[in-house]
Amino acid sequence: MLVQTLKGFRDFLPIESQKRQYVINTLKDVFSSYGFEPLETPALEYEEILTGKYGEEGDKLMYRFEDNGGRRVALRYDQTVPLARVIAQYQNELPSPFKRYQIQPVWRAENTQKGRFREFLQCDIDTVGTTSPLSDAEILAIISDSYEALGFKNFKILVNDRTIFSTITAVKVEELPMVIRTIDKIKKIGREKVLDELIINGISTERATNIIQTIETQKPPVNIANILSAAKEFGIPDERIEFVPTLARGLDYYTGIIIEVEIDGYTVGSVGGGGRYDNLIGMFAGRQVPAVGFAFGFDRITEALEEQKLFPENLVTTKALVTIFSPKLLDNAIEASYQLRAAGIATELYLDPQAKMEKQLKYADQKGIPFVIIIGEDEAEKNVLTLKTLKTREQKKVTLEEALKELQSA
Amino acid sequence: MLVQTLKGFRDFLPIESQKRQYVINTLKDVFSSYGFEPLETPALEYEEILTGKYGEEGDKLMYRFEDNGGRRVALRYDQTVPLARVIAQYQNELPSPFKRYQIQPVWRAENTQKGRFREFLQCDIDTVGTTSPLSDAEILAIISDSYEALGFKNFKILVNDRTIFSTITAVKVEELPMVIRTIDKIKKIGREKVLDELIINGISTERATNIIQTIETQKPPVNIANILSAAKEFGIPDERIEFVPTLARGLDYYTGIIIEVEIDGYTVGSVGGGGRYDNLIGMFAGRQVPAVGFAFGFDRITEALEEQKLFPENLVTTKALVTIFSPKLLDNAIEASYQLRAAGIATELYLDPQAKMEKQLKYADQKGIPFVIIIGEDEAEKNVLTLKTLKTREQKKVTLEEALKELQSA
Repeated sequence: MLVQTLKGFRDFLPIESQKRQYVINTLKDVFSSYGFEPLETPALEYEEILTGKYGEEGDKLMYRFEDNGGRRVALRYDQTVPLARVIAQYQNELPSPFKRYQIQPVWRAENTQKGRFREFLQCDIDTVGTTSPLSDAEILAIISDSYEALGFKNFKILVNDRTIFSTITAVKVEELPMVIRTIDKIKKIGREKVLDELIINGISTERATNIIQTIETQKPPVNIANILSAAKEFGIPDERIEFVPTLARGLDYYTGIIIEVEIDGYTVGSVGGGGRYDNLIGMFAGRQVPAVGFAFGFDRITEALEEQKLFPENLVTTKALVTIFSPKLLDNAIEASYQLRAAGIATELYLDPQAKMEKQLKYADQKGIPFVIIIGEDEAEKNVLTLKTLKTREQKKVTLEEALKELQSA
Repeated sequence: MLVQTLKGFRDFLPIESQKRQYVINTLKDVFSSYGFEPLETPALEYEEILTGKYGEEGDKLMYRFEDNGGRRVALRYDQTVPLARVIAQYQNELPSPFKRYQIQPVWRAENTQKGRFREFLQCDIDTVGTTSPLSDAEILAIISDSYEALGFKNFKILVNDRTIFSTITAVKVEELPMVIRTIDKIKKIGREKVLDELIINGISTERATNIIQTIETQKPPVNIANILSAAKEFGIPDERIEFVPTLARGLDYYTGIIIEVEIDGYTVGSVGGGGRYDNLIGMFAGRQVPAVGFAFGFDRITEALEEQKLFPENLVTTKALVTIFSPKLLDNAIEASYQLRAAGIATELYLDPQAKMEKQLKYADQKGIPFVIIIGEDEAEKNVLTLKTLKTREQKKVTLEEALKELQSA
């Protein structure tokens, strides 16, 4: 038997998992500070709840099967359709507006050759039930605070109004979806190629040039101006938000502001996106339910933090390893580890009383534990302990109280 | 279309989800304080990795299907087999011993009429790679600290040695699994019925009586005595651990200490279990890999916390709702919410400038937000704000600084 994970699926060993937890906790703290609350939905749903909601592509990439009871079921494909179900199912129990965050894995049978994963974490915030521009501005404020809390210095929140495209008189109604999809590529493939693609799609050179020029010179419409002015009151620095009239976002369902975030120096692409989508969340409730939201690109954010060396150094929470000098001195070691832990210092006790000191130090090194404590016969007699800093290999004899102080401030 | 969740699957609306996060975070903090690190494995595995590991029942209850690429896959059924795979796959990258915790959902097509769920969180700690009794004692210390950190006052850690049963000469080798399974029920069905069941299974009345008596009067064998003495050094109060020679635990794979935790007043059953299992984790590595671990019963713990009213009152992190007195005073409201948030107070701004004050107060009530801030014309003019405590409906006019102080200490 091959002992392996499925293609597109990942194990997260401790260091990677710690990093993920750090990102999740940082984001949750920001979300909570604005009164957003957590929601969890099941991994499996009735197939008919999910199919037909993500286009042909979605139905194809969805993990679907028949369960033991003969029910057609499907694995969570995103967190928006489950949110729509929740809104319909619990309408009388939820506050309005309903401001929720949701951070759960989704599954898509993507082509892994494109570097895509088949299981990945989605991290969404959405405000459901209001058309107030304040809710759009609040989303922008959370975005701004979130990337800042993660330590990114130079990032840009790009915004546009999706309805801008339907006001361009040079675009015929039936051409609109194609034009949006094509303009959306302007950053990726450049202006010239977008022009070519419009022409290939049957628009004359003159009209295509006119369309691009018209879009490029759009000024923020009044709804965007209102949102941006409120966003300023929310404390977002002016230079962090940019109105980009060519920003299109591929998805069909946006009805107002659209948002993307880019980080300076991270070239893979945008690290999050969202916008207002007033006609989607009501799909199961049978009425219009306005909504605005944003999806943080979890894997890209993690990658950007790694590239820009922004992960905190002390993600390993263990501060000290208490070694066991000899089986005879085991009780002294256990006692010291207990005292340190009782004082709030995450402390590991080495578990094998027979192991050589060298092996114990190596273990601390491998786990990235910064300090090691040694209690030999001499230390035991004098009621002190040796505190060793692994990075510098410096060591000194101190009392337990002195060690506590040093570790607490380290 | 029926808008519903699958039977045995649950949505967790904000209040429930907050409670779950509280339990998870409390446990993680304890695990980390002993140097345990997080591990995450995929929801889907190759079917052949999982089948045949959980007995016939397991293979039957497992969610298995063929993916789009024709691979036979299965949903995570527990976290022990994936741990065994990880141990084999990354043997050179992991520290030894490897102390990991894992908190992820698993899926089992259980009979929901028995009140069982088909998706539930497992919460495991395991120390892999050492036979040291210190590792067993450390697990006991973590158990003790964990239930204490959750706020349980009276709980018991029951321990036994699984090998005790094979030392009873009155039991024939071939009867051993049956005897263990039967004795395991002694708490549930009582001594008399266990006796009956042994007799039904072909053991004479005399021998069955003798077997039960012999088991009941066992003293802690030397390995357990060693572990318990170390556990004491780890700071576990004496009266919290009890040696129970009739404790059996159904599962076949234990090879040493077995552990169960019971909470006084919670009658559904044990809230966690585990033990030493030295012959399981090496299944993919092709060598013996000793291990000791414990599984916290997440749903039962949550239920017990609920029953015993042990959840903290302030799980709702939002401290204040800043209301909007009128559209004209919107900027004052945004500004106040910004200032409060900047001072570290989780603050919600009401999002609809047109809403009546009554509706805004109702919203705060519904979300369990303890304080409400109102800035009317009078307040704006005098540069103060009205701080209202929702529980008592008391209100007073204070400066922003005074409000900050009160909210920070609330």
